[in-house]
Amino acid sequence: MKAGVRTGVLERAAAICILTLCLSCLHVIALKSQLFTRHGGLSSSTGTPISYKTLYFDQRIDHFGFLEDGTFKQRYLVADKYWHQPGGPILFYTGNEGDIAWFCNNTDAKHLNYLTAEQALADFAVLIQNMKSTVSGAQHSPVIAIGGSYGGMLAAWFRMKYPNIVVGALAASAPIWQFPGMVPCGDFYKIVTQDFAKSGYNCDANIRKSWKAINNVSSTVSGLQWLSEEFSLCTPLKNIIDVAGFKNWLQETWVNLAMVDYPYKANFLQPLPRWPIQVVCKNLAFESTVSDYQLLHGVSQAAKVYYNYTGSSSCLNISQTATGNLGFLGWFYQACTEMVMPMCTDGVHDMFEPGEWNFQAFSDECNAMFGVRPRPDWAGTVFGGKDIASHSNIIFSNGGLDPWSAGGVTHNISNSLISIMIPDGAHHLDLRYSNDNDPPSVRAARVLELKYFKEWIKKAKKTLRHPHHL
Amino acid sequence: MKAGVRTGVLERAAAICILTLCLSCLHVIALKSQLFTRHGGLSSSTGTPISYKTLYFDQRIDHFGFLEDGTFKQRYLVADKYWHQPGGPILFYTGNEGDIAWFCNNTDAKHLNYLTAEQALADFAVLIQNMKSTVSGAQHSPVIAIGGSYGGMLAAWFRMKYPNIVVGALAASAPIWQFPGMVPCGDFYKIVTQDFAKSGYNCDANIRKSWKAINNVSSTVSGLQWLSEEFSLCTPLKNIIDVAGFKNWLQETWVNLAMVDYPYKANFLQPLPRWPIQVVCKNLAFESTVSDYQLLHGVSQAAKVYYNYTGSSSCLNISQTATGNLGFLGWFYQACTEMVMPMCTDGVHDMFEPGEWNFQAFSDECNAMFGVRPRPDWAGTVFGGKDIASHSNIIFSNGGLDPWSAGGVTHNISNSLISIMIPDGAHHLDLRYSNDNDPPSVRAARVLELKYFKEWIKKAKKTLRHPHHL
Repeated sequence: MKAGVRTGVLERAAAICILTLCLSCLHVIALKSQLFTRHGGLSSSTGTPISYKTLYFDQRIDHFGFLEDGTFKQRYLVADKYWHQPGGPILFYTGNEGDIAWFCNNTDAKHLNYLTAEQALADFAVLIQNMKSTVSGAQHSPVIAIGGSYGGMLAAWFRMKYPNIVVGALAASAPIWQFPGMVPCGDFYKIVTQDFAKSGYNCDANIRKSWKAINNVSSTVSGLQWLSEEFSLCTPLKNIIDVAGFKNWLQETWVNLAMVDYPYKANFLQPLPRWPIQVVCKNLAFESTVSDYQLLHGVSQAAKVYYNYTGSSSCLNISQTATGNLGFLGWFYQACTEMVMPMCTDGVHDMFEPGEWNFQAFSDECNAMFGVRPRPDWAGTVFGGKDIASHSNIIFSNGGLDPWSAGGVTHNISNSLISIMIPDGAHHLDLRYSNDNDPPSVRAARVLELKYFKEWIKKAKKTLRHPHHL
Repeated sequence: MKAGVRTGVLERAAAICILTLCLSCLHVIALKSQLFTRHGGLSSSTGTPISYKTLYFDQRIDHFGFLEDGTFKQRYLVADKYWHQPGGPILFYTGNEGDIAWFCNNTDAKHLNYLTAEQALADFAVLIQNMKSTVSGAQHSPVIAIGGSYGGMLAAWFRMKYPNIVVGALAASAPIWQFPGMVPCGDFYKIVTQDFAKSGYNCDANIRKSWKAINNVSSTVSGLQWLSEEFSLCTPLKNIIDVAGFKNWLQETWVNLAMVDYPYKANFLQPLPRWPIQVVCKNLAFESTVSDYQLLHGVSQAAKVYYNYTGSSSCLNISQTATGNLGFLGWFYQACTEMVMPMCTDGVHDMFEPGEWNFQAFSDECNAMFGVRPRPDWAGTVFGGKDIASHSNIIFSNGGLDPWSAGGVTHNISNSLISIMIPDGAHHLDLRYSNDNDPPSVRAARVLELKYFKEWIKKAKKTLRHPHHL
């Protein structure tokens, strides 16, 4: 998920990670993203020990109108090796906003018009109903929705809007409250800052100081050249606009590190060492009295932990985590329509340059890019905002290191809307494969999640045995 | 609401009837029907002692896509005479499918594309959110949705899909289960038949016999002429197609009578005496051994109770309750898209000519009329079908005389999804003004409804005082 239009990260489908949770389940992964083409996307997940079938379902392009009667091939993945049929539970992974290579060929507004969370939920519902009526043994299978990040929001909303289809949902690192008026816009970057503050001496302070240092150094031609060389940039910085992009890229780098600050070597966004922020901060553990050049040398070494941990990059591309990556455009469009998530910084409670949330500027940018205007209040209206207490059977899990927990549900709302906090967890750590270096908190979270799954399934099966009379 | 494509009745907005229920409430009546024009529609309700303001809200044409960014003037009526502000509860009447004079100018599929229940619910949600933020004293007002018939379905679905907007719903005579596979298709006409069977000697038997008698008499030219004169038809019957239309019209007449079999003089669809079916049946209380002509004379007298109780009609127009009435077309479109409601007759358990439910024929008819194909399973998927137990705070009231109770929720589903049966009630009798001739069952229903309203409001205010922490 991308933070506002300021920082971002491509979430490749963490699709199969949940398989460790439930050994007798059928796993289904549906990807709205495959709207018009069949570009592969899970290739980045090869090497994982999961085998699945790739299937296609003739899905409606538009669920909410009848004029557009066409269909598209919705790709979904089925891993049924451990599924107990008939009636064994189905874990339904609710995809994500990544893996949208199709987008490049489909940027006109007519097609994008169907890229909404409501359509995605309807896709899920129709697909599951279809599977239940066509897959032998699935008819009475209770279904649980699972997702992380935007997919976690979809999982939670799926249970809220279609409790007839799924008996419950695990919404991991799902910032369902990161919408206007629900949480302070600065909390996200505060958490990023805290992660760096506690990972090494002076780490946040030196990053906070780095923006001014960049401004100073980049004010001369020779400084620009030094900066470009120091950071091994593929394309040298030429002017103040390039420098702004460079700072944005650095900011995104720190945010991404906060999201993937995992307790073991991992390759989610980049190949990284265990506790990568600690490694990054080792390069910044000096007094803040150093010169601008010394400071920025430390910053460049720190950034290279993220971009060149394996030593295979010959140069760094500052458009790499930004819009140059087509995978982002889909999320940009969603952010420009329903998924309006205010973010801001003040440079005091966080380590970034001050930046207010400016809805009008954002809206103008959206209009220029897509010809649409965001509807900032719609998500709160249609998905309940803070008033979700009447729903049931949703687990909201959040990592204390994850900046997205700022917009997450981090307290129990009722005895069936449960918050599970994982203090030393980053972005949906609980959905990843188990690892010897997993902290006890994530192990406990997974045990608890499974306990709730079993309760929901048990209750659903009881209802099935004693259905209400007609 | 119209029964399939076979029989029907125009529901003019029974809008203001609920005002008697709650004296300290703000009443809001929203009409999706005013999609593109401002034709009046509530003029038929003049003479009622309610005063209200007519207001317009700039409502989005499309809530589920961002390509269409236009708005229309959504008309809504506000009766705030008895409203206690600030914070007094708001009763929100969820309109109905009638009052759609606009339709005649807007039959192209582009506009009809937005005529869906989902768009109507989104209209309601956005309108209420807007009122809460703009109407002084309404910010903390708990809102209860109220509706009858299709409007009752909307009220129930509104609570299901937007529990953040309404604390509860009264769904009066709402056949939310009249969709494919949920209830037997013949139950609707069985109830119509029962109403006639218990309202007079041989009443249902003579109606059952009348279809054959019409076929016999209409087989000659002189018979056709006799039939046209006997029924005082404005346009004489000329051929077998006219006769089929004539029988349809009669069938709709009996259905309509079942819907409006009220215990006092009323003018809902037509001006009628108290217990109109009893009056109708007085004209049919003879042995079934009479001649075809004698039988049909009785039928014509019976029909005239419905069409000419006031004696002001010079002739009867057999297209009057059918598609000739523009008000129907909107409902036809909805029936042809989402609101697929199977109906059938067998002539044995009901008093009608046998007629199977034929989805393919129905779909072809829809395609010919609107260029759309119905999606028979969608309503069940999106609105939960029989699996609604996880929702809360909905009262389903049904009348025992009302054929629509066949598709209604007539048993408690949980302790907050409540069924209230009104054995001697016709179509949403409980929503009508109280009357000296009201049977005790409807009085008791209203008391109970009010009790639940108060509980919901009390609970909502408690939550408001102790909101969940941010």
